[in-house]
Amino acid sequence: MKEGERVPDLDRLERMIERLVTQRACLDFASSSIRNVSGVVLELGLGKGRTFDHLRRMFPERELFAFDREVHAPIDVVPDEQHLFLGDFRHTLEVAVDRLGRSAVLIHADIGSEDKVRDEALALAITPFITQLAQPGGWVLSDRALVANELVPQSLPLTVGNFAYFIYRVESVLMNVER
Amino acid sequence: MKEGERVPDLDRLERMIERLVTQRACLDFASSSIRNVSGVVLELGLGKGRTFDHLRRMFPERELFAFDREVHAPIDVVPDEQHLFLGDFRHTLEVAVDRLGRSAVLIHADIGSEDKVRDEALALAITPFITQLAQPGGWVLSDRALVANELVPQSLPLTVGNFAYFIYRVESVLMNVER
Repeated sequence: MKEGERVPDLDRLERMIERLVTQRACLDFASSSIRNVSGVVLELGLGKGRTFDHLRRMFPERELFAFDREVHAPIDVVPDEQHLFLGDFRHTLEVAVDRLGRSAVLIHADIGSEDKVRDEALALAITPFITQLAQPGGWVLSDRALVANELVPQSLPLTVGNFAYFIYRVESVLMNVER
Repeated sequence: MKEGERVPDLDRLERMIERLVTQRACLDFASSSIRNVSGVVLELGLGKGRTFDHLRRMFPERELFAFDREVHAPIDVVPDEQHLFLGDFRHTLEVAVDRLGRSAVLIHADIGSEDKVRDEALALAITPFITQLAQPGGWVLSDRALVANELVPQSLPLTVGNFAYFIYRVESVLMNVER
């Protein structure tokens, strides 16, 4: 199944269930892998704040940053100003690279919409920023495919639902070249 | 667990999963019970159109009506003008009683918000309309408790998630008085 492709026999209720179950499975899998690794966590696409809430419950001690065009999340899930990047991803991610450097141990890109063309362009645009923010050994999860030498595709956990998702292990390009 | 009460140990992602799984379980249960009974289906609270989409997939031949304050659903889930009641529930339900009478075999009231006081007042306000729209032998599902002589609480199916939901079988008041 390609990214963004609809599972034809699922209705919107069923599709949402599969999507959320998949997100939870991927987040839990990556999170357990970074339990003893330092680094910040980035949520690209705060949305309703559901996965952000899940992440901060799992990492009460870790620094989390959220990105979104504008705030649509309930007030109790919205991070403070220092941890919220508002505006076009292409701009805010550039700012984040300057401010945070290669410090992210987990990046969750929850950027998909119902517009495939828009999603593909956005995925392409943000990938270079993601690779500048993600530290080697870290993880990138995304609901759209991301292509970069640093991002090595991983198998999904068995607990995912019937919804396309992507997990990448971050390697330094140097490591890739050496192989 | 009281209606609208938060399950304390679930975050927003987990709670949404439990909510949607519960809705699907209740809708599937009630739907299978009305398979051979005629009557229209009412969705109070179209929202994002997820449960409405689920209902119309299950009942491609049946007449479905949706109610909401305003449209927030994707265009492909929004019913045509004849099947959409837009505005305050207290007004649109009154109009629906005049137009549809006691013709509903299934009413799904998906009205809950994060404001318990508002929800309780709304549940109280719409209950008399619901009992005028629901035909005896039909079903009312709700994410908030509804109290009326005609609404007889039922056990939830075993497949529900960890989220409060309410299923009522509709009886004529006359039947209740006779018991």
